[in-house]
Amino acid sequence: MKAWLIEQLQRLNMSEALVRPEGFTRQGYTTEETNAITVFRAIAEELGLASVEDAAGNIIARWEVPGGENAAVATGSHLDTVPNGGAFDGGAGIVCSLGAVKLLKQASFEPQRPIEVICFRSEESSRFGVSTIGSKAMSGLFDPTIGSLKDQHGTTLAEAVASQGFDWENLSKAKRPKEQLQSFVELHIEQGLHIVEHQKNYGVVKSIACPIRLTVTFNGKAGHTGTTPMDRRQDALTTAALFISFVQETALQLNDAYEKSLVATVSKLTSAPNSMNVIPHTVIAGVDIRSVDDLLKQKMAKAIRIEAERIEQTTGVSIAIDVLVDNPSVLLDPPLAEQLASDHETYSVHHMDSGAGHDVMNMAQVWPSGLLFIPCEDGLSHHPDESATAEDLVMGAELLARFLMEATTQ
Amino acid sequence: MKAWLIEQLQRLNMSEALVRPEGFTRQGYTTEETNAITVFRAIAEELGLASVEDAAGNIIARWEVPGGENAAVATGSHLDTVPNGGAFDGGAGIVCSLGAVKLLKQASFEPQRPIEVICFRSEESSRFGVSTIGSKAMSGLFDPTIGSLKDQHGTTLAEAVASQGFDWENLSKAKRPKEQLQSFVELHIEQGLHIVEHQKNYGVVKSIACPIRLTVTFNGKAGHTGTTPMDRRQDALTTAALFISFVQETALQLNDAYEKSLVATVSKLTSAPNSMNVIPHTVIAGVDIRSVDDLLKQKMAKAIRIEAERIEQTTGVSIAIDVLVDNPSVLLDPPLAEQLASDHETYSVHHMDSGAGHDVMNMAQVWPSGLLFIPCEDGLSHHPDESATAEDLVMGAELLARFLMEATTQ
Repeated sequence: MKAWLIEQLQRLNMSEALVRPEGFTRQGYTTEETNAITVFRAIAEELGLASVEDAAGNIIARWEVPGGENAAVATGSHLDTVPNGGAFDGGAGIVCSLGAVKLLKQASFEPQRPIEVICFRSEESSRFGVSTIGSKAMSGLFDPTIGSLKDQHGTTLAEAVASQGFDWENLSKAKRPKEQLQSFVELHIEQGLHIVEHQKNYGVVKSIACPIRLTVTFNGKAGHTGTTPMDRRQDALTTAALFISFVQETALQLNDAYEKSLVATVSKLTSAPNSMNVIPHTVIAGVDIRSVDDLLKQKMAKAIRIEAERIEQTTGVSIAIDVLVDNPSVLLDPPLAEQLASDHETYSVHHMDSGAGHDVMNMAQVWPSGLLFIPCEDGLSHHPDESATAEDLVMGAELLARFLMEATTQ
Repeated sequence: MKAWLIEQLQRLNMSEALVRPEGFTRQGYTTEETNAITVFRAIAEELGLASVEDAAGNIIARWEVPGGENAAVATGSHLDTVPNGGAFDGGAGIVCSLGAVKLLKQASFEPQRPIEVICFRSEESSRFGVSTIGSKAMSGLFDPTIGSLKDQHGTTLAEAVASQGFDWENLSKAKRPKEQLQSFVELHIEQGLHIVEHQKNYGVVKSIACPIRLTVTFNGKAGHTGTTPMDRRQDALTTAALFISFVQETALQLNDAYEKSLVATVSKLTSAPNSMNVIPHTVIAGVDIRSVDDLLKQKMAKAIRIEAERIEQTTGVSIAIDVLVDNPSVLLDPPLAEQLASDHETYSVHHMDSGAGHDVMNMAQVWPSGLLFIPCEDGLSHHPDESATAEDLVMGAELLARFLMEATTQ
């Protein structure tokens, strides 16, 4: 199983090396993502699964059970990456899901319900600033107004979708009736160090922190860098620097002051005109705030608003704050979490929260859903050094096989 | 003269409005710059000047004097702009120079030496990070190694030069023998408020502050914004924010502590990967430091180095500093400055320094050179609202005409 899982991950990533200096760049609704999905369908077919593509480009690879119950039990993840990301974020969930099917087939298991491995489109928010587009469509959470969002090259989301053969106008048709699925479990690398620090083998997630995302625009005044006295400037970048430091310091303070953890990051920043001899007149920053404690997240956002008003007064640079995303945290299905955590003699479990969003948070709006974490090296993700051990991938396949077996035996 | 000067400025800027919301974008070695230069040659021809193009694309428009002295007296400026800059930075010097010739022709003046109006190529540093490329070539200060510098679209300086019909390998041929010119005077908008604040009409510059320019690279570590705890990050952007605030605060302090003024600006900044859910791993910043007091400039650069080492220790983000430019200030010719300032009954003069570099700083390395400033509205430049009054343009033409007359009468 170990060799098979690694081989499939190599095929999906089209690289013998799973850790390499440039990482992997396979953004949502690109040919790179589509190519990986084509490999996924080939592997599913080799396992005897028939796969179909929905209107959003999600793939549902299905183990049909003609005489059994209708509602399927599903597992899955995604194959898109951030730019220069790793081979495991999304990929680990996909190969462990396929590995689980392989284990059940090898054991000649006969499910009483259909089993599905789902590969979702465009999970990462790095290209268009919105995440989990495929699973939103499948869960009926599709927002048609975001088709005009642009990537850094000016391509709109609707154009990107069309480039891969899908029609933005039809994306809502990917919505599945509730009765088609009984439950959904996603497996993902942890992207942190909680499992290892608690000396456990894997994690079962209770709730998922959804971000508040802000776009903050600083409007100052251009001027010649050589002739504009220091005390007569409205420099958008020095104002943004005060803001960035405030976000960092306040997030550290809130972590000290409250039990639940919070992270806040100024992750995007562009400065204009970005010329050596012109004072920056406009800075646009993206802020990502997360905590499973929604009140703590709101406290951070409120502190940012108050500070922005204060800085505006002292610097003369105007600051506008737009809310891109503000969703409450998602509580996953407690009975399913209990099932995923129970009766393990081989592997020990850590109950935890997830700081990152995943496709399962959309699926959980409709179907009882669960999330399994396997450890990843140094807690790293969204980084070329992102990796998980072959042993932990095997554990992942076994955990998912057990879930699928239990859920399709009743 | 007033209407004529405005009309020529409109022709050069190809716009009836000389102040407009988008300003003017006419970067060095682009078709836009070349188009404006073509208009310049047409106006020069209308005034009876024969113009030639040198190997760097500079234009020398010449009033020939067959029987007179050989060494010409020259004036001039440039026609390139920063992105979304104004119509007057460079343009004012060009039209006042042409206007001076027109005044002398109207007065049937007969010069004893040739008179030249020079239009230099690519004065602004906004495109390639280096300034005054044309005048460097003419003064023999051409540095062939910078041909590989790239603009933001990846075009090299050598390629840009080639795109306008010139050969980077031949640029050094634009160097003129010392005996070809007797003296050079540039007129420019002040890009500040010193003249107005001293209630004078125009400025004569004693020395020009040349910048120290640094490229500062912050290397941190990427990570998921939702899962990497605040106290385990090596965020390149929060580190850069500390640096930006330090530069701003230290520049303000040095201005309070010393007689001569200093400006320091973090004018360029890019952050990578610039993704909503990835902690910034690399920030590259450009710093521009200027003062006519070279020791003060060095003091600022040294403070930056010491602080960078300190921040590196506290944040774990490595900081590398590269020096792009570090030139001493340029003292202009004192007798020429005295001549430009003397005997004025109509206009009152303010003696001052220049915080910005100009083509004249290169010409001054070879020929006795002077720099005249006319006021500009609100001291603004490198900004769409940059402007100068028609009355001050007329004054500029008259000041240059007087200089040309005096210098070609002996």
